[in-house]
Amino acid sequence: MTTVSIIGNGNMGTAIGGIVTAGGNNVEFIGRDADAAINGDIVVLAVGYPAVAEVIAAHGDKLAGKVVVDITNPLNFETFDSLVVPADGSAAAVIAEALPASSVLKAFNTNFAATLAGNTVGDNAATTVHIAGDSADAKALLGSVLQAGGVASVDAGALARARELEAIGFLQLTLAVQEKIGWNAGFALIK
Amino acid sequence: MTTVSIIGNGNMGTAIGGIVTAGGNNVEFIGRDADAAINGDIVVLAVGYPAVAEVIAAHGDKLAGKVVVDITNPLNFETFDSLVVPADGSAAAVIAEALPASSVLKAFNTNFAATLAGNTVGDNAATTVHIAGDSADAKALLGSVLQAGGVASVDAGALARARELEAIGFLQLTLAVQEKIGWNAGFALIK
Repeated sequence: MTTVSIIGNGNMGTAIGGIVTAGGNNVEFIGRDADAAINGDIVVLAVGYPAVAEVIAAHGDKLAGKVVVDITNPLNFETFDSLVVPADGSAAAVIAEALPASSVLKAFNTNFAATLAGNTVGDNAATTVHIAGDSADAKALLGSVLQAGGVASVDAGALARARELEAIGFLQLTLAVQEKIGWNAGFALIK
Repeated sequence: MTTVSIIGNGNMGTAIGGIVTAGGNNVEFIGRDADAAINGDIVVLAVGYPAVAEVIAAHGDKLAGKVVVDITNPLNFETFDSLVVPADGSAAAVIAEALPASSVLKAFNTNFAATLAGNTVGDNAATTVHIAGDSADAKALLGSVLQAGGVASVDAGALARARELEAIGFLQLTLAVQEKIGWNAGFALIK
């Protein structure tokens, strides 16, 4: 039994929590209360990128030794024309630097919430969660929780590949806001 | 009737040429002969990124006023861990700078050749060609040639989005060389 702590209860956190419980694992939702205990083996930072620093300030010490999952798409939402992280880096890299005692993964940022809740991209394509990270054990743990919940995942490589995953998330968001794709659709990984 | 000149006769150039002729438009294949005439309204640089500079040196003057399509994935193929273009740029941006009198588009780099030849990603998903560029007319011209050939395309935005398209191509190649996806598969855009 794996416990997953989800910080944030928006549509992404809710969808991820649904997968975890569908697989028979435990979920706890954590708010912004800095005194809240965090019991999860995996902690999902299910907040927007601008809120991540605040979450780390509130909870960072309790994340040591845990698998921490960054799901953010760090867009400049005013211009929709760039990311707000360094061009040769990623939100995940920024978070990993802030949490040196945690195993940071990038995951879920290429999945719209509806594709996680429904486990399909559009009508027919299976949802796949890309997982990037430098710890094979951490990636395997998250992958096993997803598999238990019936959701496919793929090892996208080292945490450095978060840069490419964030590029996919960025482009996918620009296509969705222009209504070129639906919010229940986007990029499906076909094997 | 649109004429498309394709420089390079590898599997990508061949597949793109097949789409053009399927739509009733003209194709001419151009080799490295610097004296060759280039008659196309659209010129596809269907060579690997390391060969692009040589192609531009040979043919660049003849590309003025034309739509030039960059299909490259500028990977460091020794490390498979980075691109060889500036982190805040793209191969398309490098090419556009070298060809200021051309309308440069990024397209096809997220499509494996077999997905263009067969018009499907894997068994069931439709192929979509992402087209990024700063000229709406140029994007519409290429899109119409693809549509005539039965292949869907999407306007991926300004040429700056080539950076994200190259990130997708990069990640897709890393997944294929590790046999996590097939060379007839990869990212499908579901609407």
